[in-house]
Amino acid sequence: MKEADWIEFFCKRFGHCSHPALEKGVGDDAALIRIGEEMWAISIDAQVEGVHFRLDWIDPYALGIRAVRAASSDLPAVGARAAFVLLSYEVPPSLVEKIGELTEGAAQACEELGAVVAGGNLSRGPALAIHTVVLGPVEGRPLLRSAAKAGDRIWVTGRVGEAALGLEALLRGERLPLFQPFIERWRRLVNRKEEGLAIAKFAHAAIDLSDGLGKDLSRILEASGVGATIELDRLPLAPNAHAAAQKLGLDAIELAINGGEDHELLFTAPKEIDWSAIATPIGWIEEEPGLFALRDGKKNAITPRGFDHFSKDG
Amino acid sequence: MKEADWIEFFCKRFGHCSHPALEKGVGDDAALIRIGEEMWAISIDAQVEGVHFRLDWIDPYALGIRAVRAASSDLPAVGARAAFVLLSYEVPPSLVEKIGELTEGAAQACEELGAVVAGGNLSRGPALAIHTVVLGPVEGRPLLRSAAKAGDRIWVTGRVGEAALGLEALLRGERLPLFQPFIERWRRLVNRKEEGLAIAKFAHAAIDLSDGLGKDLSRILEASGVGATIELDRLPLAPNAHAAAQKLGLDAIELAINGGEDHELLFTAPKEIDWSAIATPIGWIEEEPGLFALRDGKKNAITPRGFDHFSKDG
Repeated sequence: MKEADWIEFFCKRFGHCSHPALEKGVGDDAALIRIGEEMWAISIDAQVEGVHFRLDWIDPYALGIRAVRAASSDLPAVGARAAFVLLSYEVPPSLVEKIGELTEGAAQACEELGAVVAGGNLSRGPALAIHTVVLGPVEGRPLLRSAAKAGDRIWVTGRVGEAALGLEALLRGERLPLFQPFIERWRRLVNRKEEGLAIAKFAHAAIDLSDGLGKDLSRILEASGVGATIELDRLPLAPNAHAAAQKLGLDAIELAINGGEDHELLFTAPKEIDWSAIATPIGWIEEEPGLFALRDGKKNAITPRGFDHFSKDG
Repeated sequence: MKEADWIEFFCKRFGHCSHPALEKGVGDDAALIRIGEEMWAISIDAQVEGVHFRLDWIDPYALGIRAVRAASSDLPAVGARAAFVLLSYEVPPSLVEKIGELTEGAAQACEELGAVVAGGNLSRGPALAIHTVVLGPVEGRPLLRSAAKAGDRIWVTGRVGEAALGLEALLRGERLPLFQPFIERWRRLVNRKEEGLAIAKFAHAAIDLSDGLGKDLSRILEASGVGATIELDRLPLAPNAHAAAQKLGLDAIELAINGGEDHELLFTAPKEIDWSAIATPIGWIEEEPGLFALRDGKKNAITPRGFDHFSKDG
């Protein structure tokens, strides 16, 4: 079973669960819960040693930051602001002395978010793992994966494929200065809380890019019953992304489409609004289903491979 | 670092965090969040293979039930009702086919609670682990550890020391019929949601018994700045607890005081109210600090060892 298969199983099993307070359960970036006049979003994410990171790649303090940022990026994707964080650790006896640094990193990331650590849990475990819960109020109208409309322009914040390039460099032990910015991007991840709140009132659909732009965009397309074309030449890449990717025998565009852990915000919005101050337009939503790539004037259907922490051996 | 040291560190670091919506953060059974006119409780707990369970002790379905029950027992302890559950799994490749059963067990436990699975996460991991988040509204006034008052009677639901006895039998490979009810109690745990809601309007302090009656009661005493005396002869034990404990060379009273994972509700309440329909009176709160045990008319100070998943090798 791949992560995607499990997500499908989980969505089928629980996607139609009903509860008077549940606006949106399993199947979006975060669950949406109606409480009185407010709507709150909640999501959980994990960083597991040997799966998401190795301890020779990242120090405990940076790992604490990474854990909170990775988890919290689900909230702007539904138009919510992180208010509270809960941390559940598994720690092997040999790493007990690192709990303090890890926790300080998490606290630092929370402070940047304006969030507060409201709870925690500690277990012994065979490897270091941090499961992070983030919750907070939706500011205005929630953004859903299912709200993309034909004619929407597709936007993405920041740059894509960088964390994946950093991960490849780490996996291969490449430490040339050329790779350092990518490795640092993998280590710290980004935090798009401001952008999430800025677009919330105007965008249609949104998603947090965690499993690859192609795969995550496909989730919007499926949930919305639409198709899309991506202009590959417009994908926002780092200036030296091509050089760094070539050095590893890889393709920067391929990494931008299929690489994971960008944690940028991808959103669709009516084409009248110009979001170029905070994002890059990379394509458009169409009525015809399917995902297409446009390059040098040629349009081809693409099948995103995506990035799967669950089946990956990295 | 033991779990208790970490809890102390965590409480010092985050116990005074302030946020306009945070009624009570780190340091009680669950965080309490004010949302509009409502107060919601949220808590996280983990079950980790090799630490909390072994797979030859419990099947995946029962493990799913256990994970949700263990996590949800924090909510009645603050007077809240579980409404939503999030499940974050780590699964080794060899156990991928068990995810379905595990999830059905969790779904079953949620159904009993009237709760709905609202989110999830899946990672590969070196061992099976389930981190479970439970959240829901406080019905009426929240119960806090800090609200015990001298003169209160101390009550406990159900029976204590049974899960610890079951765990000892499992650890030693004892499978005599005598131990079966204790093993079953360890496997399934109990669920005191009704009792939690029943006492919420009348009780002073409450706590979920997860780390041993003595240790958990001490947390109430410390938070409330009071002391207590426990009448050892009144502790509610299974009829054959003494026989089963003796067979293992253990003492049933000692297991009742220091054994973990009872997940019964311990609460203190004004002595005028009779809770004997749902709980057993086991002692009283006093002004003089300290924890004392009364047996055969003699009163002795006791220092609870408690039960620590974090430092335990079991």
